[in-house]
Amino acid sequence: MTKRLRVVVVGAGFGGLWSLRSLAHSDADVLLIDSNNYHTFFPLLYQVAAAEIEPEEIVFPIRKLLRKQQNARFLMEEVLAVDLIAHLVKTQTRIIHYDYLILALGSTSYFFGVPGAAEHTFPLRTMEQAITLRNHILECFEQATHEPDPNMRQRLLTFVVVGGGPTGVEFAGALAELAYGPLRKDYVDLDSHEVKVVLLEAMDRLLPGLPIKLGNYAKKRLEKMGVEVHVGAAVKEIGEMTVVLIDGSSIHEQTVVWTTGVRGVQQVETWGLPTDKNGRVEVLPTLQVPGYPEVYAVGDLAVLPDEQHKLPMVAPVAIQQGTIAAQNVTRQINGQNPKPFQYRNRGVLAAIGRNSGVAQVFGHTFTGFFAWILWVTVHLFNLIGYRNRLFVLIDWAWDYFFYDRAVRILLPKT
Amino acid sequence: MTKRLRVVVVGAGFGGLWSLRSLAHSDADVLLIDSNNYHTFFPLLYQVAAAEIEPEEIVFPIRKLLRKQQNARFLMEEVLAVDLIAHLVKTQTRIIHYDYLILALGSTSYFFGVPGAAEHTFPLRTMEQAITLRNHILECFEQATHEPDPNMRQRLLTFVVVGGGPTGVEFAGALAELAYGPLRKDYVDLDSHEVKVVLLEAMDRLLPGLPIKLGNYAKKRLEKMGVEVHVGAAVKEIGEMTVVLIDGSSIHEQTVVWTTGVRGVQQVETWGLPTDKNGRVEVLPTLQVPGYPEVYAVGDLAVLPDEQHKLPMVAPVAIQQGTIAAQNVTRQINGQNPKPFQYRNRGVLAAIGRNSGVAQVFGHTFTGFFAWILWVTVHLFNLIGYRNRLFVLIDWAWDYFFYDRAVRILLPKT
Repeated sequence: MTKRLRVVVVGAGFGGLWSLRSLAHSDADVLLIDSNNYHTFFPLLYQVAAAEIEPEEIVFPIRKLLRKQQNARFLMEEVLAVDLIAHLVKTQTRIIHYDYLILALGSTSYFFGVPGAAEHTFPLRTMEQAITLRNHILECFEQATHEPDPNMRQRLLTFVVVGGGPTGVEFAGALAELAYGPLRKDYVDLDSHEVKVVLLEAMDRLLPGLPIKLGNYAKKRLEKMGVEVHVGAAVKEIGEMTVVLIDGSSIHEQTVVWTTGVRGVQQVETWGLPTDKNGRVEVLPTLQVPGYPEVYAVGDLAVLPDEQHKLPMVAPVAIQQGTIAAQNVTRQINGQNPKPFQYRNRGVLAAIGRNSGVAQVFGHTFTGFFAWILWVTVHLFNLIGYRNRLFVLIDWAWDYFFYDRAVRILLPKT
Repeated sequence: MTKRLRVVVVGAGFGGLWSLRSLAHSDADVLLIDSNNYHTFFPLLYQVAAAEIEPEEIVFPIRKLLRKQQNARFLMEEVLAVDLIAHLVKTQTRIIHYDYLILALGSTSYFFGVPGAAEHTFPLRTMEQAITLRNHILECFEQATHEPDPNMRQRLLTFVVVGGGPTGVEFAGALAELAYGPLRKDYVDLDSHEVKVVLLEAMDRLLPGLPIKLGNYAKKRLEKMGVEVHVGAAVKEIGEMTVVLIDGSSIHEQTVVWTTGVRGVQQVETWGLPTDKNGRVEVLPTLQVPGYPEVYAVGDLAVLPDEQHKLPMVAPVAIQQGTIAAQNVTRQINGQNPKPFQYRNRGVLAAIGRNSGVAQVFGHTFTGFFAWILWVTVHLFNLIGYRNRLFVLIDWAWDYFFYDRAVRILLPKT
């Protein structure tokens, strides 16, 4: 009897998890490695930062997912290095041999070289960052309510969101609803006119990747909700308390949220993988890394060579790529050739606030209530775990019917 | 028109919160000060540590409580000092004058001078500590599952609970249910016989303050659940990986949870308040601090002089004292004399595990299912907030019907 092959999957995001699941019936042992013991449902991360839902409601314990899968094991450690020649993955405490490797490490924020951006902004790409941002926003309100100096108070209550893509639009809307809704009731001594939510987009419209109609609708909606939207507003520099724009104007603030700019995680370059200027691994159409037929890269980390329009760095791409990479590994194990990846675009959705969203599905565009209902349905359906769905649904309903956020706790630092 | 008087309440636990509420109709401004923006329901803290419920489900935003109370304001800061002569409370950023002061700062762990106890044990008295302990327990299992050395693995899987009072009994039970239930399913490579939960009590029986029948029942129940119960087992010393008992025996471990020993918070001594050897403020029967008729101490922090049996440091005492202190302040404002405090003991309850608990109510003792149902009902009823009640109920039902914990996430450090 031959020794069973080992497939190592690095990263428990959408790409990694769907790789793992698709390997359930393959004739190999699968080891999933992630530094957290949970999977995060990224599309709702912005709602954690806006104190709409709890962190635990959009994560799922990895080991619970693994219970159903006989051939899978989990290691909670950070991957420090990959040796592509010797087929080894190195973590803090061990060195693991792989026969096949699927890299699904995701992405990190990219600051386009804007001075001060890395130091003075809040990114919104991990659960840790979402909780940090939520705590910071609540602290600003706590401080402002006791601040006698009107300039300082104005600064504490100014929240700038950089990036008019889906995340920026969704977060700006959620933040406005938080600030002008529940927080106005909580901070009775504050004048809610002093609260400013500003959305900056460098291009001349919101939601640049989507039809113009959706961008215009989003702008109108957000403005109605009290968000100051500036398009064609490229950021030149970010100081400790000021955002300076290319046109020379500036905004005095305490909080800048950075939702634009994404790149592959830095480590992979040092491991000798071929990356583009954004640090993403340039894969073959089969998602294999050139020169290493046993190594795959999927999701945000991977970039296909001859895409006319680059694929967006979103969950559906990662899910589909994770599935195909796993199927290709199974094909290789069975002596077959891997197949090229073909993205099936099911559409794009963004929620803007209560009863309003934008959607592009099946070649049609929708705005308003229908798009919002679609967004709610798709997100609830895709969230992993019945408990999570139930709890998120309760929180949303609470917010919807009582105009109140269920939660606004400054989580203790541990 | 005379200037309105100001009552400052320090601490948003049970004592402080009920003080605040009882001052709602008094003719004074009330300022509540706490370093957290939430109230914690301490009786369920041990369930957070045992990954049974989420942190957010047993806390409540203070500002939401204040919405209903016109005369109340909140300051989220730590009180650094109190000047009893000048009637001032000092925080990081401001100095606040008070006409009346209610101190409800609670208690902290006391280690009875046991060497190593302060350094090498996990206390279970704040939300922060509960989350830290939960993360630590889950990390021990993660490490153990990849640990080849059986001695090291045994150490990682040994959890010692010091103190056979209600908290120790409840936590040991909840931990055993976690370890032998959901975690056994999560860590399929671990032999669950290697997991050891040990409960140590220095006295010759569990639940020393309650009738012997209850202590015996708790011991039998816990042993049936797989907990190793040692009574008459006083701790001599705690090292980095070993608990040494007075009789010379020792236990090799990675985790000691300290549930015994409570004292008043250290700061108050430096503020010139009269304290006993446990750092608790010795108050008059009216809960006033001797020599300072405008200063009250309530809850865990306060100790009445001529109690034959000292009052337990539990929520009902704090609630009743907070209420009386507030009423006494109102009486003083109205030119009346403060009234002495009289504790109305409604009983003691402890849950041991699924379907079993102990209760002493109305002079009767109960064990088993009825006591457990009583415990569940009383705790759900007393939890603040409908959302919290609903979510805790769902989590409990989930656990009850599916023999599974809803949550076991290693919360990110922020």
